[in-house]
Amino acid sequence: MNFIMSEAIEVLERTPQTLELFLSGLSDGWLQCREEEGTWNVSEVIEHLIEGEKNNWMPRLELILKEGESQPFPPFDRYSHLRGKSERSVEEKLREFKMIRKLNISKLQSLINDKQNLEKTGSHPAFGVVKARELISTWVVHDLTHMAQIVRVMADRYRDDVGPWKEYLGILKKER
Amino acid sequence: MNFIMSEAIEVLERTPQTLELFLSGLSDGWLQCREEEGTWNVSEVIEHLIEGEKNNWMPRLELILKEGESQPFPPFDRYSHLRGKSERSVEEKLREFKMIRKLNISKLQSLINDKQNLEKTGSHPAFGVVKARELISTWVVHDLTHMAQIVRVMADRYRDDVGPWKEYLGILKKER
Repeated sequence: MNFIMSEAIEVLERTPQTLELFLSGLSDGWLQCREEEGTWNVSEVIEHLIEGEKNNWMPRLELILKEGESQPFPPFDRYSHLRGKSERSVEEKLREFKMIRKLNISKLQSLINDKQNLEKTGSHPAFGVVKARELISTWVVHDLTHMAQIVRVMADRYRDDVGPWKEYLGILKKER
Repeated sequence: MNFIMSEAIEVLERTPQTLELFLSGLSDGWLQCREEEGTWNVSEVIEHLIEGEKNNWMPRLELILKEGESQPFPPFDRYSHLRGKSERSVEEKLREFKMIRKLNISKLQSLINDKQNLEKTGSHPAFGVVKARELISTWVVHDLTHMAQIVRVMADRYRDDVGPWKEYLGILKKER
């Protein structure tokens, strides 16, 4: 096991600023492109990250600490952000993500004020018993997953433009 | 084809700052971890990006514009940065990457002062004829590839820590 709370927070606190710096001011060509019909563009990925801050990570952690295994997590709808078609700019979304992540990190730090709390368990609707520290580790890896997705989606836009170099560029060969 | 010079530069100019914000001050746990023996850690990826700035992208572009197809590119050694074991901090490496990328973008903008130059051709030792705009597109996708690699390597560190959530996290399942 590699999990250390302070190191997990290092990543959680960097993600929003990193994405803000990388994506703010980018042309629509980059922000709106998608790998194929039905997959997410960059802007939709940010909405999904906001959704997770609101309805996934902290509510689940609070449920673990309050109710233990007695009450399973309500299921998290991974596609809910796609229903309310938002007209906001990516910069507005990134600001919201940054703000809500900051609040959630403060909450996290106050909830996990004791190492024992990391070992507390809850009940996942599909997996059964899960630990608080597994949830927090997943939160970190979830950030990294969606950063990987963002650069992969962008890379895919130049799939034909790179000409014969495609052969050397693993990112264009990965399964989606 | 999606390549537009100004959009390619949007990515090229964001990469170093983005990586600097994301990686500066991270614990060694994140900077030194690797997927397996013989693969690169985060810090080595930055060295490889610096190496590309020095010996790959601009020298090849200049060769295309000066010599056309008459002189094949000298081969680029993708592992050279691993031989001179550097003791510099990741922050120092990131500063060098930022500085040299900035210079290279200025050079790029002055060399491609005419759309015609994008269609100029050179000779790749393995691929044969390649165009300037294919080289520049590849430069962009190469940045994105290594950003994807960095977050993938970091995610892999929590492979066991996420517990049963591993099943939902595609980044932990990808081929390396």
